[in-house]
Amino acid sequence: MKVGFIGLGHMGHPMAARLLGAGHRVTVYNRSPGRGADLVAAGAIPAPTPAAAARDAEAVFTMLADDAAVEAVMPGADGLLAGLAAGAIHLSSSTISVALAERLETVHRDAGSVLVSAPVFGRPDAAAAGRLFVVTGGPGPALAHCRPLFEAVGQHTFTVSGQPAAANLVKLTGNFLIAATIESLGEAFALVRKAGVDPGDFLEVLTGTLFTAPVHRTYGTLIAEDRFSPAGFPMGLGLKDVKLVLAAAEAARVPLPMASLIRDQLLSGLARGHGDLDWAALGLIAAGNAGLGTGRSE
Amino acid sequence: MKVGFIGLGHMGHPMAARLLGAGHRVTVYNRSPGRGADLVAAGAIPAPTPAAAARDAEAVFTMLADDAAVEAVMPGADGLLAGLAAGAIHLSSSTISVALAERLETVHRDAGSVLVSAPVFGRPDAAAAGRLFVVTGGPGPALAHCRPLFEAVGQHTFTVSGQPAAANLVKLTGNFLIAATIESLGEAFALVRKAGVDPGDFLEVLTGTLFTAPVHRTYGTLIAEDRFSPAGFPMGLGLKDVKLVLAAAEAARVPLPMASLIRDQLLSGLARGHGDLDWAALGLIAAGNAGLGTGRSE
Amino acid sequence: MKVGFIGLGHMGHPMAARLLGAGHRVTVYNRSPGRGADLVAAGAIPAPTPAAAARDAEAVFTMLADDAAVEAVMPGADGLLAGLAAGAIHLSSSTISVALAERLETVHRDAGSVLVSAPVFGRPDAAAAGRLFVVTGGPGPALAHCRPLFEAVGQHTFTVSGQPAAANLVKLTGNFLIAATIESLGEAFALVRKAGVDPGDFLEVLTGTLFTAPVHRTYGTLIAEDRFSPAGFPMGLGLKDVKLVLAAAEAARVPLPMASLIRDQLLSGLARGHGDLDWAALGLIAAGNAGLGTGRSE
Amino acid sequence: MKVGFIGLGHMGHPMAARLLGAGHRVTVYNRSPGRGADLVAAGAIPAPTPAAAARDAEAVFTMLADDAAVEAVMPGADGLLAGLAAGAIHLSSSTISVALAERLETVHRDAGSVLVSAPVFGRPDAAAAGRLFVVTGGPGPALAHCRPLFEAVGQHTFTVSGQPAAANLVKLTGNFLIAATIESLGEAFALVRKAGVDPGDFLEVLTGTLFTAPVHRTYGTLIAEDRFSPAGFPMGLGLKDVKLVLAAAEAARVPLPMASLIRDQLLSGLARGHGDLDWAALGLIAAGNAGLGTGRSE
Repeated sequence: MKVGFIGLGHMGHPMAARLLGAGHRVTVYNRSPGRGADLVAAGAIPAPTPAAAARDAEAVFTMLADDAAVEAVMPGADGLLAGLAAGAIHLSSSTISVALAERLETVHRDAGSVLVSAPVFGRPDAAAAGRLFVVTGGPGPALAHCRPLFEAVGQHTFTVSGQPAAANLVKLTGNFLIAATIESLGEAFALVRKAGVDPGDFLEVLTGTLFTAPVHRTYGTLIAEDRFSPAGFPMGLGLKDVKLVLAAAEAARVPLPMASLIRDQLLSGLARGHGDLDWAALGLIAAGNAGLGTGRSE
Repeated sequence: MKVGFIGLGHMGHPMAARLLGAGHRVTVYNRSPGRGADLVAAGAIPAPTPAAAARDAEAVFTMLADDAAVEAVMPGADGLLAGLAAGAIHLSSSTISVALAERLETVHRDAGSVLVSAPVFGRPDAAAAGRLFVVTGGPGPALAHCRPLFEAVGQHTFTVSGQPAAANLVKLTGNFLIAATIESLGEAFALVRKAGVDPGDFLEVLTGTLFTAPVHRTYGTLIAEDRFSPAGFPMGLGLKDVKLVLAAAEAARVPLPMASLIRDQLLSGLARGHGDLDWAALGLIAAGNAGLGTGRSE
Repeated sequence: MKVGFIGLGHMGHPMAARLLGAGHRVTVYNRSPGRGADLVAAGAIPAPTPAAAARDAEAVFTMLADDAAVEAVMPGADGLLAGLAAGAIHLSSSTISVALAERLETVHRDAGSVLVSAPVFGRPDAAAAGRLFVVTGGPGPALAHCRPLFEAVGQHTFTVSGQPAAANLVKLTGNFLIAATIESLGEAFALVRKAGVDPGDFLEVLTGTLFTAPVHRTYGTLIAEDRFSPAGFPMGLGLKDVKLVLAAAEAARVPLPMASLIRDQLLSGLARGHGDLDWAALGLIAAGNAGLGTGRSE
Repeated sequence: MKVGFIGLGHMGHPMAARLLGAGHRVTVYNRSPGRGADLVAAGAIPAPTPAAAARDAEAVFTMLADDAAVEAVMPGADGLLAGLAAGAIHLSSSTISVALAERLETVHRDAGSVLVSAPVFGRPDAAAAGRLFVVTGGPGPALAHCRPLFEAVGQHTFTVSGQPAAANLVKLTGNFLIAATIESLGEAFALVRKAGVDPGDFLEVLTGTLFTAPVHRTYGTLIAEDRFSPAGFPMGLGLKDVKLVLAAAEAARVPLPMASLIRDQLLSGLARGHGDLDWAALGLIAAGNAGLGTGRSE
């Protein structure tokens, strides 16, 4: 299948490599040109502009940092939209706002092209192994057509709605649940630690009983070990995602008091200079509020 | 081993049966006498008082509803303490306050007996199958001595501290994490539901990706299906447990903002007449705050 | 003094009338033309465009609904900026975002004109009586020059900063404090009411002791009497203002947990269909969460 | 009138002096005997026990630190209850729990005496000047009979209910509103301060516009000036009062999310070692969460 790929960052690069490895013809574009050299060496076609990456493609991925980055590659003579053929598909995999997904859907409908939202769960190593989870929303035929692409990058594909934006909402809501897990673990560890229980022992109880999910193991370990850098996902980006889910919920008139609480804790973390720590450092904020020093200096 | 067992309710009854089945000599006491007839038929020795259940026993379990019930069986000529031999062990498995565990430890030290806290995770069916998780705290020799008893009722025994009360704190903190999971799921489902996503599809995404723990499956299913009665664990008891963890945290000077939030939501549930629903009905409160009717009438 | 006035709504109209009454030459512009007829009859000069209202003026007020309305009158050949003479002053009295105030300051600096922020506290009747409170920020000479204008519309003028945006922040923070007062009163009345205390008696205790401020009397009375419509300031606008203060605080990395809580309560109010009630109906939400019916149907 | 007075602390001492000055015959008791020497010199009759203070009195005040102190003076041969004549009145002016007030009412009814709750608003200087506010609840004839006593200590007497406990609830709810005002001011000052606005200027805007109540002036000044010691009312006692209102609200099934938030902030303050600062230091917590140092070291 002829595929365009825009955005060769930590997630986009391994995803493009997986598509290439699965035998698709992949045309790649990245704002900073160097990023795709190894992909080109492996057979990818370099494109000088988003429009060039979209030209001739049946489907074009965007995997970019945020709303602004996606909005930047769309318009103009060099933009994705100018290159995309009638009936071709924009596969939007970035974590973007629900509002932007809704605007993109309209833009594509007016242009005669199709938006499919396909955000993913998983970190770069999962992307490299084709073990992402892909959450998709969009018109049925377009989803069916792109299924081989999802299977190249992911271990499982979920279809949640005929509306693309619903997939973005599900992704953001999932990120909220990760954040809620971190915050609750942070408070729990602060409490048992202050009472003299060994954090490792407590982690063993949790992950050995009811709290066996990857989200518990990953973040429980970071908090138990006070290991907040290097950041897998920094607090600053965490705040961005929590803001996106709050914005979507606000538009839908849905209060999310836990998300509000997490936002305030993240803000306090940033105010105290922890913006570059992993968002597991919500546990550091909870410990500080309990008057605990930790292994780290605060 | 000679064991006493006080409290033959939904949890205590199957635990006593497991001990009996493992070949221990079990003397049983229950405030309402009928409860243990089948156990006696199977070989248990009936005791007319807590003191009688404790007499001659190396270890006596209490598995009772709350602090008040435990405090009621301790004092007086008929009480547990009067019957317990010097050096014998009180195995406290009820979910009680940290403060009571601390008081009991002192009482036993003064009396020449020993307190071991051994609260459990798991529902009655897990108790019947010997699949509980037992969280223990107390003096090492006493813990070692009682290990066969823990193995009769549980699939795994965790030792968290030489202080009995620390095991109670770990248990309460675990319950807080369950409540936090429910509340976060409740908010998440309210959001995606209002946006038109099918709750079952959303549950599938969650439990198929990062949220695979029993706590996610159990409560996610109840919320996705609006199935809040019959209650496995009613809101009223949920509030009791959240209050216990807040009290322990307050004594330790540890703020738990998520627990505070959950307490307020549970209170609102009780105020609206939902006290007999399962505490998964936190999801009902979240839906109501989002202006959603649900399958149930509110 | 030659003054332009853009925006003749509930607040702008009486302010323009006060300026006229104080002997200033006032040129008025409103998007819907009819609004200023009585002012013109009283001597105001009608302007067909914002640019025309600004031309020849030493200072031009804007008193508009929100950021979007202010941004709409600025650009283009008909816009305020095109009409404003070098060195002339834009008096921004609307409740706008801190971010917009910062952008406007830059725009004016580039254009050779001057921004003064002069948001006000007070309702339309106070505007008509020249009893507003004017909170000003901007360059000292511009503030001094405009003082007669502030005195025409207000009973007192506060100068908080050389930075215009600081005055907007102070205004938004004041609105946050009003909202916090309403929410706390709403919770308090729900509590005493459920305990059988007469709301009027409770109001008398409050306003007769420590809670004697206008903000207590105004909102305490509305809550005590369950009088939420007609809305003096509807929940929907309240949410807008709380969002503005949260946005300013977020940019400054300042958590405002009370504002977050109020935002969630307002969202719940809107979700339940109360968006057109006065924001005193935060008390209605609190009562509902306490399981109280009120005089109103919910 | 023959009056007993139990508890000659910071509040009780000046209240007893006022009663004496108004011509009543006052018998005084204090646990630490020295406290009343000057009152005795001025004509008060010293009593060696609570019972002695109650004997022959038509009404006996208690003005003690907390529930425990009140419960300590009630029972036994030396206790208030033993000394109180049939039909005599216990005037309970301490800030105690609603639950204790309800228990005391029953105790007195059984004993043939009468409980009147008469908690007060005001600090020691107001007590000395007879400028307290007295909030009363109890049977009408008893209230009428005691009116001269209320007038001796207070500038105004409010009657809120025939139920004594309702007066205690109103008092606690008032304290909650004070705490909510402090917390909201703390957040507001943190925000404007971080944006570079002078705290004194901001205070002037607040107290010169809508926020003119004593509660704003008192706590706004302390926060603006970072003046948290010596404590007029320390954080530790503040936490006690917030807990009392939360307990009363919980019993009535009324969520008070603002009180929950304040409780968590006070706990964090205590955890950080600020328990002896005035509860205005909620502003210090808010500033710390915003990453602000203040004039004080944190």
